[in-house]
Amino acid sequence: MCAQLLSTRPYKGTRDFYPADMALRNWFFGKIRRALELASFEEYNGPMLESLDIYIAKSGEEIANEQTYNFTDRGGRRLAVRPEMTPTVARLVAGRINDLNFPLKWFSIPNLYRYENPQRGRLREHWQVNVDIFGCDSYEADLEVISTAISLLKVFNADSSMFKVHINNRRFFNDVIAAIAGTDAEGSRKVSKVIDRKNKIPREVYEKDLKTLGLDEDKIAKIDALYSMSVTDAAALCPESKGAQELLDLFSALRELGLEEYCVFDFGIIRGLDYYTGTVFEVLDEAPENNRAMFGGGRYDNLVGLFVKNTNVSGVGFGFGDVTLENFLVTHNLIPDIYAEGVKVLVTKFDDVPYSEYTNIVSRLRAADIKSSVYIGSKKFGKQIDYAVKGNYSHVVIMGTSELEAGVLKIKDLRTREEHTVEADKLEAFFA
Amino acid sequence: MCAQLLSTRPYKGTRDFYPADMALRNWFFGKIRRALELASFEEYNGPMLESLDIYIAKSGEEIANEQTYNFTDRGGRRLAVRPEMTPTVARLVAGRINDLNFPLKWFSIPNLYRYENPQRGRLREHWQVNVDIFGCDSYEADLEVISTAISLLKVFNADSSMFKVHINNRRFFNDVIAAIAGTDAEGSRKVSKVIDRKNKIPREVYEKDLKTLGLDEDKIAKIDALYSMSVTDAAALCPESKGAQELLDLFSALRELGLEEYCVFDFGIIRGLDYYTGTVFEVLDEAPENNRAMFGGGRYDNLVGLFVKNTNVSGVGFGFGDVTLENFLVTHNLIPDIYAEGVKVLVTKFDDVPYSEYTNIVSRLRAADIKSSVYIGSKKFGKQIDYAVKGNYSHVVIMGTSELEAGVLKIKDLRTREEHTVEADKLEAFFA
Repeated sequence: MCAQLLSTRPYKGTRDFYPADMALRNWFFGKIRRALELASFEEYNGPMLESLDIYIAKSGEEIANEQTYNFTDRGGRRLAVRPEMTPTVARLVAGRINDLNFPLKWFSIPNLYRYENPQRGRLREHWQVNVDIFGCDSYEADLEVISTAISLLKVFNADSSMFKVHINNRRFFNDVIAAIAGTDAEGSRKVSKVIDRKNKIPREVYEKDLKTLGLDEDKIAKIDALYSMSVTDAAALCPESKGAQELLDLFSALRELGLEEYCVFDFGIIRGLDYYTGTVFEVLDEAPENNRAMFGGGRYDNLVGLFVKNTNVSGVGFGFGDVTLENFLVTHNLIPDIYAEGVKVLVTKFDDVPYSEYTNIVSRLRAADIKSSVYIGSKKFGKQIDYAVKGNYSHVVIMGTSELEAGVLKIKDLRTREEHTVEADKLEAFFA
Repeated sequence: MCAQLLSTRPYKGTRDFYPADMALRNWFFGKIRRALELASFEEYNGPMLESLDIYIAKSGEEIANEQTYNFTDRGGRRLAVRPEMTPTVARLVAGRINDLNFPLKWFSIPNLYRYENPQRGRLREHWQVNVDIFGCDSYEADLEVISTAISLLKVFNADSSMFKVHINNRRFFNDVIAAIAGTDAEGSRKVSKVIDRKNKIPREVYEKDLKTLGLDEDKIAKIDALYSMSVTDAAALCPESKGAQELLDLFSALRELGLEEYCVFDFGIIRGLDYYTGTVFEVLDEAPENNRAMFGGGRYDNLVGLFVKNTNVSGVGFGFGDVTLENFLVTHNLIPDIYAEGVKVLVTKFDDVPYSEYTNIVSRLRAADIKSSVYIGSKKFGKQIDYAVKGNYSHVVIMGTSELEAGVLKIKDLRTREEHTVEADKLEAFFA
């Protein structure tokens, strides 16, 4: 054959997970899954391919077409490889709206595809933890979501020197802008759009745009001042605002839960003008090299309404990806040697001992819930030991003809290099 | 808004996993993952999108195009949503051929897409357990793979009345056909093709085709006899065959491991003429309603050679999907009530007790590793109990103003309906 060889590289922006990579991912998602289950969140999932329409309905034709992998099937259905989980979960909630047990506390860890150029912290394929509460309008759900977000980092022993939750409220944002600018609803919306672009446009343009909308130097200074205010001082600027009250309730409850040290009020958190309606937050890594938000989330209203009439199910939640999480854990040195613990036994073999003697040892070890394998193949003893070391085995069991006749086994601990001779029937007890 | 409502149904041939469905899938894949890790298999994974070329190289242009979801990206790359895992794992092995620790014992549980009409046991999206050993040519790897397949069903308490592993050997198949038919290599290949179609064509056509290839009634009867022969009798028909020896070694080792009751020699197992090269097997459900093979697998040579020159890494493995597994478990009544065990506590709330009293209780429970949640929302007590029952909580904690003043909590066991009053500081101890 002289066929051309195929490339061994994965598709651009995607990753292969060799066993060490997979063990790491399983380790951190395992901890996250347990923490979420501890907090009574239930896991769901949906298909990898979805109707493109659900992304168009949420984000518009252009974004849905440009930023997803999409194609038309033979039945003429426009499909997308899911770029996010929110439309899927809204579809699931809508599909059983009359049977579900609200408020729902749901999570998922799907893989997602976005069609954009890969960069640090953002790849084309990633795995994303999605956490949501549906069907509870009060700040208690916001509190539960934010305290859960904090708990998911604390399970890795992250502390408040490593990350902070930056919190704002979209309702408060609208109200305080209207109060300062003295604008009507439409005017406030235009002001909000300028403020949303604050960090993306030069300061002169920012000021000029606000002045065009009728704000003077004094009002612009008042808005500037919000960025360094405490939540109490900021809320005092529009005490009648429902959003201000929500912020105060939320911060008070966070204080009572002992979570104050992890949380800051941050007027700069807006997160998409059209989607979020109440609490919004981002978790920021304190390390300067990871300067993107690690996660973001907040309260959004009635996505479920895209699927069922006359319904109003609000949601509050957040999502974060494996790439940013891993960057965070690596940066703060929070990943232990996941191979340094636990017993995993390789039973080495010699050709002059019947193979069934070895498979019987392995059967006994596995029956005793001890990870184990016989060496498969016919390499020399030294090579078998190399295989055990490279394969992260903790122990090797050695039985040649002389041990077999004497009814004993040698057990070598590859970490301490100690060697023990034990009676063959005491094998399981040795590892107990 | 009068926009048209979106459908709540998942894409044809795919499934939504509501929490109860997901809990079931996590339960059975969790047991499988633990069993595979116990046997020292390591998990890997790869991306959902792969170059279409790797499927074309394995299965040909027509099958790859017809049976996969494929499309071209903006860079002109032809991509497929992965329909199977074998080309991916061959790519991974090839990519680190010089660094990997052979023999590899690897597994994966990916979701896969095939473009075909859904039918019982076969959907467009399914999850598939893939188990492979790479880099060991001897029957010991075949033994390990088959005994692992059996162990994956035994973890569900399946016994030999429920399933059987039907085993054949492709090398033996070729040799015994040549021995009986007296044909040369090319002639034997043609005979094999007819036999491969045995169950799909009328008996007369089968006989006529074999006669055309030079086989008389006697030879056809000899081939017929193979289907009901013991492995010893069958192997005796061509004792010089390497395949016959492999079969004898394998069955002898299965006997020594006490696995004989699960295994039968079955000359009817062929599994694709061009792909498998040695041991082939299928696990068949003994229940007549599940008459498809639950899993299939065997030894295949050098898929890795599609990616790297001058290499020869053989593999032996199997794959099976969540749909067939679930059908098997349901048919044989092997799924326990996965919600009947374990503690999960709902802390009910009254509006006249400070909310922080409840969140503190939940914090304590979670710190003691007890699944718990405060009721989020403001429904009446009876509705909160309904929520707990429907949400599979095992206990509710009740604290009104009188309990708060007395420093006690009421704990109701929702399964036994017993109610206990405990001192507030004995909460964790109650569940210990």
